[in-house]
Amino acid sequence: MSLIVQKYGGSSVADAEKVKRVARRVGKSHDQGNQVVVVVSAMGDTTDDLIALAHKITPDPDEREMDVLLSTGEIVSTTLMAMALRSMGYSAVSLTGGQAGIWTDETHRKARIVSVEAQRITSELETGKIVIVAGFQGVTRNMDVTTLGRGGSDTTAVALAIGLKADKCEIYTDVEGVYTADPRIVPVARRLKDIGYEEMLELATWGAKVMHPRAVELGQVYSMPILVASSFNENPGTLIHKGASMEVRNKVRGIAHDTDVAKITLVGIPDRPGIAASLFEPLSKAAISVDTIVQNAGLNNITDLTFTVSKSDLTKAMKIIEPVAKSIGASKCVSDSNLGKVSVVGTGMQNAPGYAARMFKALYEAGINIQLITTSEIRITCIVAQEDVKNAVIALHQAFELERA
Amino acid sequence: MSLIVQKYGGSSVADAEKVKRVARRVGKSHDQGNQVVVVVSAMGDTTDDLIALAHKITPDPDEREMDVLLSTGEIVSTTLMAMALRSMGYSAVSLTGGQAGIWTDETHRKARIVSVEAQRITSELETGKIVIVAGFQGVTRNMDVTTLGRGGSDTTAVALAIGLKADKCEIYTDVEGVYTADPRIVPVARRLKDIGYEEMLELATWGAKVMHPRAVELGQVYSMPILVASSFNENPGTLIHKGASMEVRNKVRGIAHDTDVAKITLVGIPDRPGIAASLFEPLSKAAISVDTIVQNAGLNNITDLTFTVSKSDLTKAMKIIEPVAKSIGASKCVSDSNLGKVSVVGTGMQNAPGYAARMFKALYEAGINIQLITTSEIRITCIVAQEDVKNAVIALHQAFELERA
Repeated sequence: MSLIVQKYGGSSVADAEKVKRVARRVGKSHDQGNQVVVVVSAMGDTTDDLIALAHKITPDPDEREMDVLLSTGEIVSTTLMAMALRSMGYSAVSLTGGQAGIWTDETHRKARIVSVEAQRITSELETGKIVIVAGFQGVTRNMDVTTLGRGGSDTTAVALAIGLKADKCEIYTDVEGVYTADPRIVPVARRLKDIGYEEMLELATWGAKVMHPRAVELGQVYSMPILVASSFNENPGTLIHKGASMEVRNKVRGIAHDTDVAKITLVGIPDRPGIAASLFEPLSKAAISVDTIVQNAGLNNITDLTFTVSKSDLTKAMKIIEPVAKSIGASKCVSDSNLGKVSVVGTGMQNAPGYAARMFKALYEAGINIQLITTSEIRITCIVAQEDVKNAVIALHQAFELERA
Repeated sequence: MSLIVQKYGGSSVADAEKVKRVARRVGKSHDQGNQVVVVVSAMGDTTDDLIALAHKITPDPDEREMDVLLSTGEIVSTTLMAMALRSMGYSAVSLTGGQAGIWTDETHRKARIVSVEAQRITSELETGKIVIVAGFQGVTRNMDVTTLGRGGSDTTAVALAIGLKADKCEIYTDVEGVYTADPRIVPVARRLKDIGYEEMLELATWGAKVMHPRAVELGQVYSMPILVASSFNENPGTLIHKGASMEVRNKVRGIAHDTDVAKITLVGIPDRPGIAASLFEPLSKAAISVDTIVQNAGLNNITDLTFTVSKSDLTKAMKIIEPVAKSIGASKCVSDSNLGKVSVVGTGMQNAPGYAARMFKALYEAGINIQLITTSEIRITCIVAQEDVKNAVIALHQAFELERA
C-alpha cells in the first residue's frame, strides 16, 4: 500500500461537475489500494473574487484579515470534494490547514511552513478515509490563520508528502507536464518523462510556470519525487526527482523563456566596493525583485552595470535608481523595457564543452542579436529583444534536437 | 467602561456598503468608552448559496462537511467587518467560533454550546481591540467545526455575553424590536420598551420571529439582559430582561399569530394508558415537530385526540399516524391544513380572572369560530381558520387596548 499526496489546482475544481470528476480520479487511486491525501486550491476565480470583495471595503485591507478571508476559498473546495467522495461511497474527511497540522510563521500573506504535524491526517488515513486538505493555508502557534503566498497549494502538497513520508507527491494541473519548450511556441516540443529538481527550478523560474519553484525546492531538499501531470486526462506527466540517467542523456533538457523583462544600465560608474549594495538595497526595500545582474570588468576603474526587473517594476525602479546613480557618479542611467529572455537548461552543461557556442551560433544564424549573457551551472541565458524571443526558442529547440527523445 | 456584545444579522451585512455602515455603528459604541465584541452572520444569501452549491455535488451532503462549508460564510463577514473597522482607524481582529472559544457537542448542523472559553477574546479586548466573532459556529474537542442550527448567531451572541460577563447583549436586526402584534397586520401595534424572557418566548415561539427562542432561553437561564433593536436606525428597541413592573402593568403584552398550522384529529380512541406514547413516538422519530396537543375527557372510555403540525409535515404525519390509528382502534383519522393560531401573551394572566373570557368574546364578536383552545401560564391560544387569523389579531389587539402604553 502506497501513501500518495495529490494536489488539484483551482481550474481543476472550478465548478461542481469538475469537483465530481476529480473525486472520481481520487477514488480510483484509492481503489488501487493507495492511501490518498488530496490538497485542493480554491475553485476557479474564488480567490480573485474574495480579494475584490475586500477592496470594496478598503483599498488597503489588513493582511491578517485578508488571510482569514482568502483561506475560506480553499476550505469550500475541501468540503465539496469530501461530499463528492462520500456520495460515491468513499469515506472522506476535509481538514483545514490548521487541522492538518500545517504550522507556519506569522508572516501573513506569504507565511513559511515551520513544521507539519500530521497526526490527525495519519489517524484519519488509518480508519480508511481519504483526507482532503485545504491548500495554501496554515496556522500560527497563536492559532491565527496564515496563507502561504504564490505557489502555496503546491507547497502544501509537497510539505504534507514530506511530513507524512509519502511515497509520491502528484501535482495535477492544466498542463500535461514539463516540456522541452513552451508547446504554444514550439509545436514539436516534447514532454519530458523526468527531470531533475535543479533543472526544473531553472525551467520554472525562467518562465515555464508549470509549478512554483518554492515547492520544487522543498521537494529537492527532502528528495520527494513529484509527478506533474494533467488533471484532465490520464497521460503520464513528468516526474521531478533526483537525476537518474544524468551522464548519458542529452544534457540540454529544455528551453525556457520569459517576455517580461526590462533592463536598467548604469554607465560609467566607479568600480569600487559598496556600489552594488548602495544600488540594490533601496530596490530590495521597495520590494522590487531584481533578476539578472551583469557587471563588466571595467577599464580605468570605470565600469557599466546592468540588471533586469519585471516590466511592471521599471518605472518605480528608475525613480529609485536615478538619484542613487547620480550620487555615486554614474555618467548615465538608461532603461529598455522591450526585452525578453531565453535560456537553455540542463544539468552538466558547464562541464561539457560547446553548449554555449552552439547556443550563440543558433541565435546568430536566426539573425538574433544577444544583449546580455549570464550563466549558471545548469543554464545559459541570453537577453534579446522581446520580438525575437519566439524565434529564439524555435531556433534553440531545433539546434539542440530537443524534439528527439 | 461597559462590555457589550452586539450581534448583526445577515441582512445588516449583506454588502460592502452595509458592512461599512455597521462598522461605523460599532465604532461609535467603542468611542463611547465601551469594550465591544461583535457577532456577525453570513452576508445576505450566502448560506443559501453555499447550501445550493453543496446540493450541486450531492442531494444528501454529509453533515460534518456541510458545517465546515457553511462556517465559511460567517468567517468572510468577520474579516470584512474587521477590515472596515481598521480602515476607520480602529484596532480590530476577527475570530472564528473556534478561536473565540465556542466549544460545542458533536451534533453537526445543530450543535449545542458546551462551554465558552473566552481567554482569547479577553486578551484582545485588553489591548484595546474590537473583537469580531463569527456567529452560528463552534468547534468540538476534536477541533471539528460545527454549526449551531437555526438562531445560531443569536445564540452565539448571548452565550458570549454570558461567558464574558458582559453588561449587555444587543441583537441588531431588521425589525425595531418586539411589538404588541405584527405591525403589518395591526398598524397601531406598539413597540414594547421591555418584556420578560418568558413572554418573549411565547411571542417568539408563537410567531413573532424577532429572535430565536433558544437564545432567549439562554438569556433567561443566566439573567442576561438582551436588547433587540434595528440595525438601520437609532431607535431604542426592546429590552428583554427579568420582568420589572410585573404587577402593575397591563398583563396582556402582545398578540402572537402563526398561519402555518395543520391539524390531525383521531376520533373515538380508547382512553387508556400508552395511547399518546404510541402516537407521538413514531412522529418524533420521523423528526416531525408536534405543536399543540389537546385531548378531551372521554365518555365511556372513548376519547378524541387532536394535535397540530406544520403544514409541510402534514402528509408525512398522516402516513405515519393512519396505521397507528387503525391499530389502536380509532374510528376515524381526519386532517385539516387550512388553520392558523392566535395567542394573547402576558405574565400573570393565569392568576388574573377574565382574560380568557375577554379573548373568546372578542373573537365571537368578530365572527370568528374557535376550533381548539389551549393555555399555558402566560398564554391563551385559539386555533382558528387560516382566513380568520388576520381579523383575530386585529380584534384582540383592540380588545386588550394594546395600542395604549
